[in-house]
Amino acid sequence: MWLTSSSCVQLLIYFFIQVLALCDHPSILDKSETQGLFSADSIERAFQIIDQIPGRATGAYSHSQGIKGLRDQIAAGIEARDGFPADPNDIFLTDGASPAVHMMMQLLIRSEKDGILCPIPQYPLYSASIALHGGTLVPYYLDEEAGWGLEISDLKNQLETARSKGVCVRALVVINPGNPTGQVLAEDNLKQIVEFCKKEGLVLLADEVYQENIYVPDKQFHSFKKVARSMGYGEKDLSLVSFQSVSKGYYGECGKRGGYMEVTGFSPEVREQIYKMASVNLCSNISGQILASLVMNPPKVGDESYESYSAEKDAILSSLAKRAQKLEEALNSLEGVTCNRAEGAMYLFPRIRLPKKAIEAAEAVKTSADTFYARRLLNATGVVVVPGSGFGQVPGTWHFRCTILPQEDRIPAIVSRLTEFHQEFMDEFRD
Amino acid sequence: MWLTSSSCVQLLIYFFIQVLALCDHPSILDKSETQGLFSADSIERAFQIIDQIPGRATGAYSHSQGIKGLRDQIAAGIEARDGFPADPNDIFLTDGASPAVHMMMQLLIRSEKDGILCPIPQYPLYSASIALHGGTLVPYYLDEEAGWGLEISDLKNQLETARSKGVCVRALVVINPGNPTGQVLAEDNLKQIVEFCKKEGLVLLADEVYQENIYVPDKQFHSFKKVARSMGYGEKDLSLVSFQSVSKGYYGECGKRGGYMEVTGFSPEVREQIYKMASVNLCSNISGQILASLVMNPPKVGDESYESYSAEKDAILSSLAKRAQKLEEALNSLEGVTCNRAEGAMYLFPRIRLPKKAIEAAEAVKTSADTFYARRLLNATGVVVVPGSGFGQVPGTWHFRCTILPQEDRIPAIVSRLTEFHQEFMDEFRD
Repeated sequence: MWLTSSSCVQLLIYFFIQVLALCDHPSILDKSETQGLFSADSIERAFQIIDQIPGRATGAYSHSQGIKGLRDQIAAGIEARDGFPADPNDIFLTDGASPAVHMMMQLLIRSEKDGILCPIPQYPLYSASIALHGGTLVPYYLDEEAGWGLEISDLKNQLETARSKGVCVRALVVINPGNPTGQVLAEDNLKQIVEFCKKEGLVLLADEVYQENIYVPDKQFHSFKKVARSMGYGEKDLSLVSFQSVSKGYYGECGKRGGYMEVTGFSPEVREQIYKMASVNLCSNISGQILASLVMNPPKVGDESYESYSAEKDAILSSLAKRAQKLEEALNSLEGVTCNRAEGAMYLFPRIRLPKKAIEAAEAVKTSADTFYARRLLNATGVVVVPGSGFGQVPGTWHFRCTILPQEDRIPAIVSRLTEFHQEFMDEFRD
Repeated sequence: MWLTSSSCVQLLIYFFIQVLALCDHPSILDKSETQGLFSADSIERAFQIIDQIPGRATGAYSHSQGIKGLRDQIAAGIEARDGFPADPNDIFLTDGASPAVHMMMQLLIRSEKDGILCPIPQYPLYSASIALHGGTLVPYYLDEEAGWGLEISDLKNQLETARSKGVCVRALVVINPGNPTGQVLAEDNLKQIVEFCKKEGLVLLADEVYQENIYVPDKQFHSFKKVARSMGYGEKDLSLVSFQSVSKGYYGECGKRGGYMEVTGFSPEVREQIYKMASVNLCSNISGQILASLVMNPPKVGDESYESYSAEKDAILSSLAKRAQKLEEALNSLEGVTCNRAEGAMYLFPRIRLPKKAIEAAEAVKTSADTFYARRLLNATGVVVVPGSGFGQVPGTWHFRCTILPQEDRIPAIVSRLTEFHQEFMDEFRD
């Protein structure tokens, strides 16, 4: 039983799946049997997409930024989301968000003297990518007491400390909604971050892949681009890269490897280098490109699939919200465990106060206390969580990440196994 | 009119397309209408594939090396091709061959002191990747007089020269069949290369993406693995990486971004690092993975689709052979142009002896003579070729690369435009 990643979950939006299948095999589009198998609007959408592809087939390389017609749809989706213009020429379609992050890191990092400000805890893609490209990770701590908020004064301290050591800090990574921490940053906090990046001349790398995953009524997603534009900041004021993926949201199509980055506020010379980097691998996969366009331009009111699409989407999101709440409550009821709300994303990141004896037992087998706990949990129950050490945490504190992705009907069993294990673990090691 | 890349061509194998569409939308597999739209064996194959995927859907991340059941099929395909065992655990499925090449370069190159032996002319993915990862390209020249063969004595000279400059040469890249040069290396030549790599302790990076593209009866493809095993060399004798792609061959599904590398002869410690690199991007796209398995395990005699599949494949390959021959003849009939046979791959790389006046005219506009010629050709005729400078060539010689991919019925028009342009160009600049 896995509480680690979205590999265990199948979120399914049939409209998306239908369009993808039709685009793979467009010669069935006008067959009569197709109408019995596919919705009218999925057939229509597939026709529209195929018409936008030179050669009317998905088998050829595309433009290295992605098929222009699909980028048009994505830009329109961003405009509809933000209320500010988006330019299809700013969109780079990618095989998921990870290669996009690597691409930006490769462009930003020249040597170990170049630093990237990263949240701690962070999704380890960032530490891995910075290490791979030979740069320096400059950590800033998210404030657990403040619901994993981002404290600008800490950011500033870390920046100055790094600079005093001769590190040229080039960019700030913000993951919103947070991974592994599940928080949704407040609009005021986003404004402070924009202001900070502008003032300090930092590229803002905005990991916004969980933008559809919000589970609490008092929070909503605001893109950094929207916030910056609403503050009156344009192209010349802020270099901003927003990452989006088809692997998250209510669609969860991880295996399709689709995503994009929207790149704004760079000089033409830098843009040319980004394009050159994108072209080294020719193009991202076309199915992933199509799916990214569907995610940003789903069925609308009046379309044949709209009702089923909405029902699927609502069912998935409300189920995820229920799972988040049930797991959060269960975790908070455990001895020595506190857990912030899962406001968004797909994770909970509870803090666990481990007894001294448990920490010593971990040290005796040369492992960290949270890994010791997680291994014990796995062996005793089959439930997998990821130790906080994998994401970074304030030294001396211990956490683990668990996803909210197990099927709803399996959560009671997971909770009861976890609770029983935790009780026994504490009984064994309690000081 | 493009003679540059496979972006212009649509090679289409319907069996592959059908299986991909069905795997995208497996819930139609058992609908009655599906039998009217899809062949029985494509439905059966899709069932088999879906059964091998945890969760029976293509929406989840896979194992970072790719879905095990698909790797089994690929390994079986390699065994059938080579007559020697292949291990599914040696297969890493990737988003096309390019990311696989980058991954190996990233692992091999620690600093500019690390060198990679690369053919000149070469497909510029290699020079780009070596530059990106901060290494040193150690060139060796293919021998145009010997049909772009690979001269071991030159290889040895280049290796020794590089070593004398303090470069640690770690690997040798061989592209067979050749890009941009179109040669198919003879088996004896492959044996010499294997022997050389073994003796010198070099990793052999074998770009074998054109393994299905052979157009002359006196040549055939031999994989380096088969050659090494037939020489009695096993895991411990040679570190070998073979790259394969779904973008070439008779299938040409460039937009699907599928491919794999077969990695043999590395220690468990190195293997672990390769796996770690692969896992940073989670997994390659599942459609590309499926297609790679289909390419290595196409319909067999007796399958419903076998005849149509064979007919499609033969038609594509024999048409490519005819196009290659027609273009080669046309090029060889031009004043000052000589062109080796296109034995394989998708390219011709004619040498063009440009008049002194043309070289001076190019210098006057600060460009290379081959680029000057290619630009003139483009402006006069709309035909695009790539100047040899993009691939590297013996200094003082000039070439261009043209693909053999234009539709067969368009080739006479292309030839006549090219011939007319060339005549006029030579008339304008003849010494």
